[in-house]
Amino acid sequence: MIIVMKTGSSKEQVRNVVERVEELGLHAHLSEGEERTIVGVVGAPLPPDLDERFAALDGVDNVVRITKKFKLAGWDFHPQKTIIDLGDGVTIGGEEISIIAGPCSVESEEQTISTAKWVKAQGATILRGGAYKPRTSPYEFRGLGVKGLEILAQARKETGLKLITEVMTPADVEVVGEYTDIFQIGARNAQNYLLLEEVGKAGKPVMLKRGLSMLMEEWLLAAEYVMAQGNPNVILCERGIRTFETWTRNTLDISTVSVIQSLSHLPVFIDPSHAVGKRAYVASASLAAVAAGADGLMIEVHPDPDRAMSDAAQQLNFQEFADLMPRIGAVAEAVGRVAPSGTTASAA
Amino acid sequence: MIIVMKTGSSKEQVRNVVERVEELGLHAHLSEGEERTIVGVVGAPLPPDLDERFAALDGVDNVVRITKKFKLAGWDFHPQKTIIDLGDGVTIGGEEISIIAGPCSVESEEQTISTAKWVKAQGATILRGGAYKPRTSPYEFRGLGVKGLEILAQARKETGLKLITEVMTPADVEVVGEYTDIFQIGARNAQNYLLLEEVGKAGKPVMLKRGLSMLMEEWLLAAEYVMAQGNPNVILCERGIRTFETWTRNTLDISTVSVIQSLSHLPVFIDPSHAVGKRAYVASASLAAVAAGADGLMIEVHPDPDRAMSDAAQQLNFQEFADLMPRIGAVAEAVGRVAPSGTTASAA
Amino acid sequence: MIIVMKTGSSKEQVRNVVERVEELGLHAHLSEGEERTIVGVVGAPLPPDLDERFAALDGVDNVVRITKKFKLAGWDFHPQKTIIDLGDGVTIGGEEISIIAGPCSVESEEQTISTAKWVKAQGATILRGGAYKPRTSPYEFRGLGVKGLEILAQARKETGLKLITEVMTPADVEVVGEYTDIFQIGARNAQNYLLLEEVGKAGKPVMLKRGLSMLMEEWLLAAEYVMAQGNPNVILCERGIRTFETWTRNTLDISTVSVIQSLSHLPVFIDPSHAVGKRAYVASASLAAVAAGADGLMIEVHPDPDRAMSDAAQQLNFQEFADLMPRIGAVAEAVGRVAPSGTTASAA
Amino acid sequence: MIIVMKTGSSKEQVRNVVERVEELGLHAHLSEGEERTIVGVVGAPLPPDLDERFAALDGVDNVVRITKKFKLAGWDFHPQKTIIDLGDGVTIGGEEISIIAGPCSVESEEQTISTAKWVKAQGATILRGGAYKPRTSPYEFRGLGVKGLEILAQARKETGLKLITEVMTPADVEVVGEYTDIFQIGARNAQNYLLLEEVGKAGKPVMLKRGLSMLMEEWLLAAEYVMAQGNPNVILCERGIRTFETWTRNTLDISTVSVIQSLSHLPVFIDPSHAVGKRAYVASASLAAVAAGADGLMIEVHPDPDRAMSDAAQQLNFQEFADLMPRIGAVAEAVGRVAPSGTTASAA
Repeated sequence: MIIVMKTGSSKEQVRNVVERVEELGLHAHLSEGEERTIVGVVGAPLPPDLDERFAALDGVDNVVRITKKFKLAGWDFHPQKTIIDLGDGVTIGGEEISIIAGPCSVESEEQTISTAKWVKAQGATILRGGAYKPRTSPYEFRGLGVKGLEILAQARKETGLKLITEVMTPADVEVVGEYTDIFQIGARNAQNYLLLEEVGKAGKPVMLKRGLSMLMEEWLLAAEYVMAQGNPNVILCERGIRTFETWTRNTLDISTVSVIQSLSHLPVFIDPSHAVGKRAYVASASLAAVAAGADGLMIEVHPDPDRAMSDAAQQLNFQEFADLMPRIGAVAEAVGRVAPSGTTASAA
Repeated sequence: MIIVMKTGSSKEQVRNVVERVEELGLHAHLSEGEERTIVGVVGAPLPPDLDERFAALDGVDNVVRITKKFKLAGWDFHPQKTIIDLGDGVTIGGEEISIIAGPCSVESEEQTISTAKWVKAQGATILRGGAYKPRTSPYEFRGLGVKGLEILAQARKETGLKLITEVMTPADVEVVGEYTDIFQIGARNAQNYLLLEEVGKAGKPVMLKRGLSMLMEEWLLAAEYVMAQGNPNVILCERGIRTFETWTRNTLDISTVSVIQSLSHLPVFIDPSHAVGKRAYVASASLAAVAAGADGLMIEVHPDPDRAMSDAAQQLNFQEFADLMPRIGAVAEAVGRVAPSGTTASAA
Repeated sequence: MIIVMKTGSSKEQVRNVVERVEELGLHAHLSEGEERTIVGVVGAPLPPDLDERFAALDGVDNVVRITKKFKLAGWDFHPQKTIIDLGDGVTIGGEEISIIAGPCSVESEEQTISTAKWVKAQGATILRGGAYKPRTSPYEFRGLGVKGLEILAQARKETGLKLITEVMTPADVEVVGEYTDIFQIGARNAQNYLLLEEVGKAGKPVMLKRGLSMLMEEWLLAAEYVMAQGNPNVILCERGIRTFETWTRNTLDISTVSVIQSLSHLPVFIDPSHAVGKRAYVASASLAAVAAGADGLMIEVHPDPDRAMSDAAQQLNFQEFADLMPRIGAVAEAVGRVAPSGTTASAA
Repeated sequence: MIIVMKTGSSKEQVRNVVERVEELGLHAHLSEGEERTIVGVVGAPLPPDLDERFAALDGVDNVVRITKKFKLAGWDFHPQKTIIDLGDGVTIGGEEISIIAGPCSVESEEQTISTAKWVKAQGATILRGGAYKPRTSPYEFRGLGVKGLEILAQARKETGLKLITEVMTPADVEVVGEYTDIFQIGARNAQNYLLLEEVGKAGKPVMLKRGLSMLMEEWLLAAEYVMAQGNPNVILCERGIRTFETWTRNTLDISTVSVIQSLSHLPVFIDPSHAVGKRAYVASASLAAVAAGADGLMIEVHPDPDRAMSDAAQQLNFQEFADLMPRIGAVAEAVGRVAPSGTTASAA
């Protein structure tokens, strides 16, 4: 960490800064320039909020953190890309693009299982479906709960798909963990730290959606909460951030793919459905994500989107999804990845 | 709700829309213009996500919601301004500007009680202090927990101040409720719906901070979650939103005061400390908030901010707070409010 | 346009609204519901700021515009996609992906011509290079002016590439127009309406960068300014918007591609260089743009980026550009477009 | 400037950085830590884009600029607050709060002069009114041009008010300068650098509105463009920034007042009308601005706002303005400023 003193800061102010550094068991290295004094701070480990602690001291102009705040999520401590093995040949983070698909909410056995069969036939390997739904208004449909989890388990049994479903609160981690293969943490809970720790302890892989206005560094620190509990299997999923533009539901920050891959070994997914929020724009966003280098996609599919109990505007119908999958496969191959099974050019 | 059909939408598309309306037990009222057909939807109650359900139907151009999604928080069902009585003559939402002050985190009995005595002497009526701290990194100080709650209770006993402290997860609502007078829901938990319902059930007043990128309507819907559990005593607290500007920690959206007061009967507070994030700008933000019409302020005060274990850069020291309070009192009186006790012009 | 009156609005307020409608030579159509009155406004043409004029009238709750504000840029008046013919077989908006490449600034004849030859050899058809540079600080390099334009013309002569260069002010339109094939309007001038009209009159094609915080509708209205002068050849270029995220220079709003294509017949380009601002992320953004359906890319290339006089961090060097082009070609073909010449799979 | 090398950067990479520093005629000062090497850059003047030039060099992790990019606008070179004397006893930036008021657009002599007389009687000292109007759509009313300027001059003659009016393009600076006392640069032109230089040369005071998504540092650099032409009389005017919140037209960034005052000696104004965009919220924003420490306000007033040809929703009518002024005066005095003439407590 580097502490830049103001032009004209007094010797006493510099001495005070140095004392604070030493109080914390760290060392201060002074560099006195013509105009300014600069204090280098060395020693380890640096407390993560050290910059904040020094920023308001008298005579301090600027504090610059050099080391990143996240560790387990970064390349330094884990130089290989993370590949998550879900069993039965289903992996995440490898050469093959992974497709998670399914309805926004589990509404019924018929709706869920028909969707599961359809998306499996097109090349998806993981089924999504919400049993516990966070809704902006308390008067909206909030999911079937345990009944929904049972339906998902039934769909897995009939199709062999792996499962991902959202858990919203620490008390539900146990029951959701009995059914799901991957815990999903939604955007609104992206900084619900006690929930992150609880899924960290539960051991199963965790998909962490980016919060609506979360900096990428904060997102990696949220992953760090899960990983610090001993759970290395975290997937980061960008689902659009909130900006001034309102034509799309959110703004898909496509650059997260390459940026996160430069900072972290964790797999990165894109959720095009929430990002754009309108059916007509989902295909374009999906293809962009694969070309950008995403490890997978999470796409909402419903047998009758217009009658869906949540997110009606953004779910694809069966035909739209079937049309999209070979296009995803073609782009995957164009960028040197393995297409989702059943969507390769040769199969198409 | 009004459904605007596209120019050139077919009769079949209009018929389909009308059928969907009727499926939901509502009535459709057609108005066929020269260029477009408009479908009015009447009947009650309208499902809150009705606009979303119709937006993607074939032939639909635009869906306009007319009624607001929140009810209990709005003026229609509650034409008087909410005044919350905390007992012992301490109220929120009346003529007097309420000052909540205290350290970011409860660090020790000495630190907390000395602060409590100081802020009480300057005119604060409610003590703040975090016992459970949400931190961006898992490696930062996260509060003293129950020990912190006990220190707060001791401070209340010694000063007569009321207490507010944050609760982060449903499982902690019971224990926090044994100590606090007001539950604080932090910005990161502003859409943690199960937590909102749990504090709704607990019965004590709830201060709901605005999320970092929360629309005002979403904020009122979060209040609705609390109120729908039978708890009418919700305080809304703006603490800055996230924008592109980085000189301040967040951007204080000062207009929330007048906008929320036009939409809702609930008291509105401003937290200038988190909004600006730097000590030097807290006073200006505080005075602006009172002039804008806020019902109260929540200000971080610490005996030695430079050594604070969290939010060091933004906490005021004792003298800064003492200097600020009479200025708050003067502005309060200038806008026709009652100054915090002990800060009136006559007392000054 | 639909004017929704407030619950409980008086007959007089409704009458006042109707009178205002009629003052403007339009017709009002009343629809009185149980709770509210709704006033439909018909007649043509509706003034573009009509919604604003009615929004603040007493008793009015909400005004909803139905028709879009832009006309010439929309599909209604121009049902074919715009293809711009630059001559010599170079077109924009057709099946082939167009690549504009070149240095941020024209610095010297050697730098510009060597770059032009290189990018031409890799498949670019249009050369970019700034002779007039908008710079955030008045103390930065601001371009070579006419000397820069002459260098660009020399590069065109030697390579056959078409030219695009920025014009910053109406007084320069004439001289820039003597040299360039396409006028570039920069993000900071995206709502410099007099400049838009001046390039509209000049007749040559215009590339309109999106402003840093411009809504897509405002962007199309800026295009409308150009087109209303009789110039149909406008290219829209997304170059990243300003959001809270600071890791990338801007946030590439990749969804602009599909959204603009749904609203307008104009070609859409992506400028990955300005969008991400760091060399390492340009390739991923470029591939994403092509997969999303963009009609072309505008990429900064410099023989020695580290010594560039502007935008050093984001320009690709020759080898990086040469490596990227076949990858762009492969993705183009995967989404059914024609690869830039010389980058086809067969050529690679 | 400080260049932080990556952990594990090679000696060659460090040597390369040092060479580039010396190529620019500056000196490099090496500090080799256990993990990293840090290169301090000294010498003057540092090119303003120096950080950008080094950010992408191999082996560089981070570049930290220490000196600010603006000079003339900062306190270092001008330790007294700027007070602008407009003559006839009208000053800006002193103890008295300045009120600029008037219609959005000059529509007619009757409308402008009646407004001028009214606002003068309430304590305004400067008349605003647009003769050249930037409009989002080319089909909207764009001002009366020179005829509008003549009407403003007539209003000045009849009332003694000073004038401010917008200039949109360099070619109009001369004619606008013949009439106005202050040039207004609108938000859309905040980075129209050639226009900034032209008004810088014209010599009269310049009010510089903040762009919709302009960082405060960029705003000060825009002021620097004007000041670098020898014109020290710049007024900064915050008029709301663009964020995700849409209930208000823009988001008033009230903290600009205290932040700019900490960075610059230039006067700071607030334009509450554009910031909130709805009449009902203008008073609250005005009072907040004065309490925050603003040097003045710019408020839109119209004899019949509902029939205004632009910005109908946000202009105050005469009575609303008359009601607001004494409240502004009271808050001004509460924060130790001088109330606008005629609005003092004693006068009220």
